[in-house]
Amino acid sequence: MTGFVAEATDLLERTPQVLRALLVGLPETWTRTPDVADGWRPRDVVGHLITGEQTDWMTRTRQIVEHGTSLAFDRFERFAMLERDAGRSLDDLVEQFATRRATNLVALQALVTDGDIDRRGLHPSLGEVTLRQLLAAWAVHDLDHVGQVYAGLAGSRDADVGPWKAYLGILLRRDDPAAVAG
Amino acid sequence: MTGFVAEATDLLERTPQVLRALLVGLPETWTRTPDVADGWRPRDVVGHLITGEQTDWMTRTRQIVEHGTSLAFDRFERFAMLERDAGRSLDDLVEQFATRRATNLVALQALVTDGDIDRRGLHPSLGEVTLRQLLAAWAVHDLDHVGQVYAGLAGSRDADVGPWKAYLGILLRRDDPAAVAG
Repeated sequence: MTGFVAEATDLLERTPQVLRALLVGLPETWTRTPDVADGWRPRDVVGHLITGEQTDWMTRTRQIVEHGTSLAFDRFERFAMLERDAGRSLDDLVEQFATRRATNLVALQALVTDGDIDRRGLHPSLGEVTLRQLLAAWAVHDLDHVGQVYAGLAGSRDADVGPWKAYLGILLRRDDPAAVAG
Repeated sequence: MTGFVAEATDLLERTPQVLRALLVGLPETWTRTPDVADGWRPRDVVGHLITGEQTDWMTRTRQIVEHGTSLAFDRFERFAMLERDAGRSLDDLVEQFATRRATNLVALQALVTDGDIDRRGLHPSLGEVTLRQLLAAWAVHDLDHVGQVYAGLAGSRDADVGPWKAYLGILLRRDDPAAVAG
């Protein structure tokens, strides 16, 4: 399996596995801190990724294939998870995400080949975009948000590391995005 | 299993599993880009984590238990991996790291309990540090560097995401650490 769609899929398949390995069963002392002040805890990030699977990436892929640029995508609900997921455990959210992602990747394989990746759609803010850009952005969006989970986990130990904080960019950047570790 | 040492261990055990889920078998088009210009590729990061297992964290833990503050730690060789690992595959490096980490965590469990975490050692630059600080820094150092792997993976798709880059902080920060996604 080679080619652009296959390589994007390879990364997209890994995110639920990574989140399981990292988060399921992890003591709560690690998981209740947001990435930055007023930011997102790991459960908020996973909820946001669930929203992406529900209403964004695969929905937009279908829209490109079916309507091209004749119909703009709906906007992404960036805070939908805050109320929706209030009663759910983090472990449950990770499994929900895994199920939705798996379903979407089956649908993607059935719908799209590398011959389709130059097809175009209409983003409500960004204007014309290609399916190639959408698939790359889907994968990088995963990487961006899993990185945010890492910042939250690190933040839970901010006080514990003592003077080592000077060497730990992931902690310094929570206070000052431009900080450079010593 | 509760307590500070157990919770640090829980995170430390997960890092090799996360790196396996993320990196082993991932197409090379994803893994050849550094986190920032002149930064580290995923293989360099994993090599750096191997160095930590070989000569840093567990060695320093033993030194705290055996010598307290009477003998300063050796300095961390931050670039040891660049020559040492030149001929090794990324998959092989991940497995090496996993083996060394597992061995070190067995040794940690045998050597240290929560009753020891206020014991002190001497860092060559930071001065007096506690075992609690060392164990927290070991775990956050993992998080920091796995985050660096994420930045490298994202960087490999920098051109592919097109206009979506404006929304993807993990890409914007590779160019400007203080950048904020739109």
